Amino acid sequence: MRAAIAGASGYAGGELLRLLLSHPEIEIGALTAGSSAGTALGEHQPHLAPLADRILQDTTAGTLGGHDLVFLALPHGQSAEIAEKLGDDTLVVDCGADFRLSDPAAWEHFYGGAHAGTWPYGLPELPGRREELRRTRRIAVPGCYPTAVTLALFPAFGAGLAEPDVVVVAASGTSGAGRSLKQNLLGSEVMGSVSAYGVGGVHRHTPEMEQNLAAVAGGPVKVSFTPTLAPMSRGILATCTAPATPGLTAAALREAYEAAVKDEPFLRLLPEGRWPATSMTLGANTAALQVALDERAGRVVAVIAIDNLTKGTAGGAIQSANLALGLPEELGLPVNGVAP
Amino acid sequence: MRAAIAGASGYAGGELLRLLLSHPEIEIGALTAGSSAGTALGEHQPHLAPLADRILQDTTAGTLGGHDLVFLALPHGQSAEIAEKLGDDTLVVDCGADFRLSDPAAWEHFYGGAHAGTWPYGLPELPGRREELRRTRRIAVPGCYPTAVTLALFPAFGAGLAEPDVVVVAASGTSGAGRSLKQNLLGSEVMGSVSAYGVGGVHRHTPEMEQNLAAVAGGPVKVSFTPTLAPMSRGILATCTAPATPGLTAAALREAYEAAVKDEPFLRLLPEGRWPATSMTLGANTAALQVALDERAGRVVAVIAIDNLTKGTAGGAIQSANLALGLPEELGLPVNGVAP
Amino acid sequence: MRAAIAGASGYAGGELLRLLLSHPEIEIGALTAGSSAGTALGEHQPHLAPLADRILQDTTAGTLGGHDLVFLALPHGQSAEIAEKLGDDTLVVDCGADFRLSDPAAWEHFYGGAHAGTWPYGLPELPGRREELRRTRRIAVPGCYPTAVTLALFPAFGAGLAEPDVVVVAASGTSGAGRSLKQNLLGSEVMGSVSAYGVGGVHRHTPEMEQNLAAVAGGPVKVSFTPTLAPMSRGILATCTAPATPGLTAAALREAYEAAVKDEPFLRLLPEGRWPATSMTLGANTAALQVALDERAGRVVAVIAIDNLTKGTAGGAIQSANLALGLPEELGLPVNGVAP
Amino acid sequence: MRAAIAGASGYAGGELLRLLLSHPEIEIGALTAGSSAGTALGEHQPHLAPLADRILQDTTAGTLGGHDLVFLALPHGQSAEIAEKLGDDTLVVDCGADFRLSDPAAWEHFYGGAHAGTWPYGLPELPGRREELRRTRRIAVPGCYPTAVTLALFPAFGAGLAEPDVVVVAASGTSGAGRSLKQNLLGSEVMGSVSAYGVGGVHRHTPEMEQNLAAVAGGPVKVSFTPTLAPMSRGILATCTAPATPGLTAAALREAYEAAVKDEPFLRLLPEGRWPATSMTLGANTAALQVALDERAGRVVAVIAIDNLTKGTAGGAIQSANLALGLPEELGLPVNGVAP
Repeated sequence: MRAAIAGASGYAGGELLRLLLSHPEIEIGALTAGSSAGTALGEHQPHLAPLADRILQDTTAGTLGGHDLVFLALPHGQSAEIAEKLGDDTLVVDCGADFRLSDPAAWEHFYGGAHAGTWPYGLPELPGRREELRRTRRIAVPGCYPTAVTLALFPAFGAGLAEPDVVVVAASGTSGAGRSLKQNLLGSEVMGSVSAYGVGGVHRHTPEMEQNLAAVAGGPVKVSFTPTLAPMSRGILATCTAPATPGLTAAALREAYEAAVKDEPFLRLLPEGRWPATSMTLGANTAALQVALDERAGRVVAVIAIDNLTKGTAGGAIQSANLALGLPEELGLPVNGVAP
Repeated sequence: MRAAIAGASGYAGGELLRLLLSHPEIEIGALTAGSSAGTALGEHQPHLAPLADRILQDTTAGTLGGHDLVFLALPHGQSAEIAEKLGDDTLVVDCGADFRLSDPAAWEHFYGGAHAGTWPYGLPELPGRREELRRTRRIAVPGCYPTAVTLALFPAFGAGLAEPDVVVVAASGTSGAGRSLKQNLLGSEVMGSVSAYGVGGVHRHTPEMEQNLAAVAGGPVKVSFTPTLAPMSRGILATCTAPATPGLTAAALREAYEAAVKDEPFLRLLPEGRWPATSMTLGANTAALQVALDERAGRVVAVIAIDNLTKGTAGGAIQSANLALGLPEELGLPVNGVAP
Repeated sequence: MRAAIAGASGYAGGELLRLLLSHPEIEIGALTAGSSAGTALGEHQPHLAPLADRILQDTTAGTLGGHDLVFLALPHGQSAEIAEKLGDDTLVVDCGADFRLSDPAAWEHFYGGAHAGTWPYGLPELPGRREELRRTRRIAVPGCYPTAVTLALFPAFGAGLAEPDVVVVAASGTSGAGRSLKQNLLGSEVMGSVSAYGVGGVHRHTPEMEQNLAAVAGGPVKVSFTPTLAPMSRGILATCTAPATPGLTAAALREAYEAAVKDEPFLRLLPEGRWPATSMTLGANTAALQVALDERAGRVVAVIAIDNLTKGTAGGAIQSANLALGLPEELGLPVNGVAP
Repeated sequence: MRAAIAGASGYAGGELLRLLLSHPEIEIGALTAGSSAGTALGEHQPHLAPLADRILQDTTAGTLGGHDLVFLALPHGQSAEIAEKLGDDTLVVDCGADFRLSDPAAWEHFYGGAHAGTWPYGLPELPGRREELRRTRRIAVPGCYPTAVTLALFPAFGAGLAEPDVVVVAASGTSGAGRSLKQNLLGSEVMGSVSAYGVGGVHRHTPEMEQNLAAVAGGPVKVSFTPTLAPMSRGILATCTAPATPGLTAAALREAYEAAVKDEPFLRLLPEGRWPATSMTLGANTAALQVALDERAGRVVAVIAIDNLTKGTAGGAIQSANLALGLPEELGLPVNGVAP
């Protein structure tokens, strides 16, 4: 099978390529870009030696057409038009936000403009999603923060162990902000410093978290979400808390998490007493997870580490694509982080 | 005035010395250490050239006696015995935890062993504390996390704008863990990685936060606290949230914070729309603060950045000592961070 | 084929395991350690989920025996005794220094004590080595710095384009110093700081560089080597210079390097005008290389980036082991770095 | 005395302001910028609270005129025109390259365009310079790399202990590249990675090093210079080697360095056996220096650490300005680094 990648010069595009280069069933086809069209991939992704001389093409339906699958790693708002032209038999995997939300009002509130629609949501670990993904030609890849937060809390909400009043604080590596030339993303400014941004309920990933957790909880879930930027290139560590339901015991909580991850190839519940570090998952499609019951404060506290570019974007995209292509879900996806 | 420093080979001791070297009214006297006694300070604090040849003495009442003030930067449990021998006319400033908590039960629950007592608490910004510090010969320097969290939330609780159900997630630089030789503090393990530790209500700084906020709120405050380790040497960024009281407006919230910081030399409320970064405060005694009302989630979100070794330990200690010595509170303390 | 790993709790051991977990022809057998024997691997290598519950055994000929190959990642001086007991039909791959040097005097000068002997040198890229490695049951894996420096300069010396008066300055990530609990390796001390160590011709890797380059040059080569520690976990960037031979042109220099890397699967000469960064090779067995002629100063300047734990240790070890086992040299070894 | 700062929104400008805020004899006057004119300083230098509300003016002779001294932190080529208009009684301190080189041919080779002239060179530690600086109204502040390299080697060349065939490899923090929005300066690209750039004798600081060392050596000196970028915001560690003159002993070498630094307030020769780390000098105007004789390779190896923004730019500028203003050379300049 041949895959085209739109947005191959960015960080998400680079990670898709790194993973696909080791994928036994997917061959890399056209690589496209926006303003970098016409340049060699090696200028943008110097770590991908085998593709260094590949020339980036324009992102058009023409260059992307004729592939079995197309990964879109484009700025928000550009996917709908392309997808429409690609035909229903092409598997289209959108790493952008355009088709993630089902509620048009939430879309308009957080993104502005018209809602493009809703595609099957590429988080196979969520109850019911895996089956849906096996039958689709359109996949909306989750945002990196919602991936982390949803995986951290779905066991608690699925088992009815937490109240729907969630507080999340997450630290992300700078690659989560993409390759944009902004002053606050310069190395001189981010090294040696942790900073907050998008505070106060304004981050666009908030409604996506609420949507996912509500589906599991069977009712609305409120999320207070604060993202922070940490001095590392990759990785998300999300601390997710919610009030414990009355009478919850630590044993029951642990049991629910053990049950939830039992057959999941990419979810790893750490042994009791150990807590996640993002280095455990660097470059891997794995989520490292731990949970505790804070009895004094009456809260469930779940902490999760993922690589924002792998499980949080490109790896998650390939995992879902594997399902849609009828391939083994884990094919071509690394499980072990690069550490130390 | 001459000051002795006990624990001069550690990170807190080094920061005390760095600041005292620029203090116009305090001269540096005896430097003592535990297992490093007999070695030159330069081996431990190579950044402090003027003191490189000073030999570390044993930490005893003998070596520390005869100074106008004594800073104790010792492991928990060692301060009481030393302090007793130093006499009531010596100003003793304890950077350890021994005398911070007023509730013996909380001490025993979190630290174990017998409670040593309670000293005036060295956070001049808290209502009433400044006066108390001007009259004391004993100061309990706050923990680094409680310094951050208390300064972030006292304006909200002081004005009755938040419910006492606090969730805090904080990222700290590794110097907060001291100079101990532990595998998880090795550079190879911390660089490129954010990790959680002490999750689930077990971190020892939790009751100190609750004590401070309860004093301001006029009633018990519950804190769910999760600390994380970020890949930087210095700095704490604490995200602190609590449910907003009904009817709270963003304007009223901002007004309360503006009032609270108005005359404070080391509290800086950032302009609206800007959020703290730890680099703003590197090496400075300043706390950079911002607050927002998340109307969807119904929560006050305050974010604060401090340097854990400066405002969070050594700078805070000198600020309180200045008061006790009848000196201007700001004397010898840097306001501006070293950035980028 | 089954492989045992001695020293599985260290950084080199962890990287061997990470790579072997993806190796299609080598199965992981016994894992042994020194003081960590009896503990679970997961405590030491939390990024290797599939092996988390494996218990570390003692490092003895008994536990290591009965495997097709044995990787030794032990402190210097421990390999000879073990290797002797393992029998001649076991492939023994020593990641330590014991069998790298052929000159006993150099060994004694730099390491002290008696020279244990010399094993075939595991750097297949060096002329003649590949054939030797295909026939051996004993492999001495090169040091990380000598790997980098030798690969950077062998094309120049092999073609007679440089005088044997080499100056090398290299920056290494902290994992090169191993997992030892030393104050100068604490995260608080290494982050935000580059430092020098082992300056003045005393670093033990110096004679190994001289030995390798002399073999290519056909005469003695002098190396002035200065290592530095950079604030990153992994990676070596080595800047290697030597006087150009009279009349050398930039074109001839480039041609020699192109010829040298032409059929090498893990050597990558960057396009002209681009210079190596260690991120290009993170987690990969690739060396990224560039060379220039400084006509004003009359020197050849070669710069190379490798991952010290992959191509510099564990990947290089597996590459040579593949040859000795009759497998394709590149089997199981990643070519593409994890970036950004 | 009142100082204007042109280029106040950049990293050099910010460091000038940080230092001047603690300078007892210099008051901060006009702040100017290029494209940022009209904005508040706080948007660019959030670590400088006391100046947060100051509005940046246009960089013109009008806004800069009427001050006792003017610091220019401008892109190359803009200083001459401004300086001309400022009048001879204003002290003009140029942090740019325009007036550093005395050889027009070297200027044209490395910078292109016409040579603007030569101003007294702001490195007081160089023999003869201090007197010259006491009498001037124009100062050319040295480049950051030439500051480091010159201070590392002038003792050896001044005492005739080294041959004029220098090899320098230096690691710099990213702030040395300024605040320009370039992809290779993004945090995601620089963190966890050391890279080379400007290799092969093309870096513009090379002729400045040669000029300085030649003046001390009394004859031409050749420098092979390779700069590298390290994952830290600030700091330069330069490894500088040259062939030892025949018969040189380690004792004679040490003696020469001890003599050279003896009365220098900002040069610190470390105790034997200890090597510089950039963290020793973070935020300080100090250079930490060490030297060794590599007897096997026959080379002098000097290693130096400075903060590129302090001693390497803004601190060095103020040090020289102090001399020109008749103030104590050390006034307002920190000696101790911020560590860990």
